Amino acid sequence: MFFENIDTALIDVESLPWIPFLPYSNEVQIKLIKVDPIRGEWIVLLKTPASVQMPKHHHSGTVQVYTISGQWRYLEHDWVATPGSFVFETAGTTHTPVGVGDEEVCALNIVQGDWNVIGPEGQVLAIENWKSMTQRYLDYCKSQNIEPIDVSSFTG
Amino acid sequence: MFFENIDTALIDVESLPWIPFLPYSNEVQIKLIKVDPIRGEWIVLLKTPASVQMPKHHHSGTVQVYTISGQWRYLEHDWVATPGSFVFETAGTTHTPVGVGDEEVCALNIVQGDWNVIGPEGQVLAIENWKSMTQRYLDYCKSQNIEPIDVSSFTG
Amino acid sequence: MFFENIDTALIDVESLPWIPFLPYSNEVQIKLIKVDPIRGEWIVLLKTPASVQMPKHHHSGTVQVYTISGQWRYLEHDWVATPGSFVFETAGTTHTPVGVGDEEVCALNIVQGDWNVIGPEGQVLAIENWKSMTQRYLDYCKSQNIEPIDVSSFTG
Amino acid sequence: MFFENIDTALIDVESLPWIPFLPYSNEVQIKLIKVDPIRGEWIVLLKTPASVQMPKHHHSGTVQVYTISGQWRYLEHDWVATPGSFVFETAGTTHTPVGVGDEEVCALNIVQGDWNVIGPEGQVLAIENWKSMTQRYLDYCKSQNIEPIDVSSFTG
Repeated sequence: MFFENIDTALIDVESLPWIPFLPYSNEVQIKLIKVDPIRGEWIVLLKTPASVQMPKHHHSGTVQVYTISGQWRYLEHDWVATPGSFVFETAGTTHTPVGVGDEEVCALNIVQGDWNVIGPEGQVLAIENWKSMTQRYLDYCKSQNIEPIDVSSFTG
Repeated sequence: MFFENIDTALIDVESLPWIPFLPYSNEVQIKLIKVDPIRGEWIVLLKTPASVQMPKHHHSGTVQVYTISGQWRYLEHDWVATPGSFVFETAGTTHTPVGVGDEEVCALNIVQGDWNVIGPEGQVLAIENWKSMTQRYLDYCKSQNIEPIDVSSFTG
Repeated sequence: MFFENIDTALIDVESLPWIPFLPYSNEVQIKLIKVDPIRGEWIVLLKTPASVQMPKHHHSGTVQVYTISGQWRYLEHDWVATPGSFVFETAGTTHTPVGVGDEEVCALNIVQGDWNVIGPEGQVLAIENWKSMTQRYLDYCKSQNIEPIDVSSFTG
Repeated sequence: MFFENIDTALIDVESLPWIPFLPYSNEVQIKLIKVDPIRGEWIVLLKTPASVQMPKHHHSGTVQVYTISGQWRYLEHDWVATPGSFVFETAGTTHTPVGVGDEEVCALNIVQGDWNVIGPEGQVLAIENWKSMTQRYLDYCKSQNIEPIDVSSFTG
């Protein structure tokens, strides 16, 4: 039965590829660590050059962000996230990330559900979630002749 | 501190109003039981006349449906949900509900995150979530001169 | 890959067996509907004769209770749960359920994590969770020559 | 209403105190970042000297561990968690952490629900959760004349 194969596991993040976050940006890169196809959680590293602005977005659930290096902020908030800080984003909030300072930004993102790119009139331009992230990963692996691992699996 | 007021509580569902699920339908009614503004969960009763078809929708997280009365199905699946059955909807799935048979359908829905109405070309026509549901409830209470309760609160 | 088999599904609750909630009580019965071995959620129907008192317990996460029939309360709270009411139990609370009135109580319980039976000095007497509930279900099926279904699976 | 004050927020982890993880160890230190008194999530940094063994424990829900520095493993698993790796612990698993190598271990832990210290006969020796962690933080602040912040709040 399904439960017999489920166990705690280590993900070797080092061995996973950095993937351009297309079509949004060729400079922004993501590393997909884990997706949960039952609950819709997805866990990624996000890496952006200094001072890059990302699309304005809405997210359906919580997002938790641990900043590893670099500094960033949301245009809609006053605070600046620095290395070692933790951001708890509550469900249904909307904001526009922008890099601050001279250093490349790298952050761990634990995301629940959909991440909607929002246009100037509030329209939904694109939706990212566990499905689109998995597809981007599989497509990238295919294009680079990398053997993909099953990022959706919770076997030990 | 915030935690000092949090406790297990009963929600008196009987006393909450049925609200037309506008602009989608004047016949379909919802009763908002609870919203979680931190995590994005919303809990509603949904009541539809026999044989009504609801909009095709995508949801970002899980939905759990306990059918109280009536029968319904998704155009995309073969099974029919009958009274006492339980549907577990996994994150990121899309489907079109339709009533089956002669009886009014009433179902308890426990929803995580966004519920996107999807158009014929796959475009997002509208998004329902804890915010829109709370606003609809508050607007309805105002229009009917009902004193709203705080459906977003978890105080005992 | 794992995600390829995950889909929304109906659980035919009618066809699942009522199981004595041993060793706590031979009169109290549970029907296991679904367990999530990744996140630790378990969904059960609970049926108790009128006026039965259940063990005092602590639960690690939330519990959501929809009462289908009968009336019950917690010794620690003033309210009485009646048919159609909804109880939202916040994480880490402790209480003692008791039936009220003359009717058998039947309630849908959506539980996150552990459910600890608490002794008179506050000690943990037993822990119920997705694992123990699944084992009780499998043991009962074996003892009754029922072919068990995989209650831990989220395939469509 | 409650929802009107909920918003995305930055937690300034740097400014929060390191607290001895008593009564388990005076050498192991925790930094409490956030607790959710509704759902039971708690987020902590854990810092241990090289080669320290922590108590064997069971957890009711998931735990996600991002290792910032140092190396550690579970006695029950073969892999070693190194800086930058990610561990996804599924609900209801039990294990014994031990430091590996010469460097202090520091790791971010995102925990759902209870964390039970398990004795040699499988008995529950202690339970840690959002409540005990908050109490430990408040007690420590009082003993050190530090003004505590409300780690349970999700206001922006």
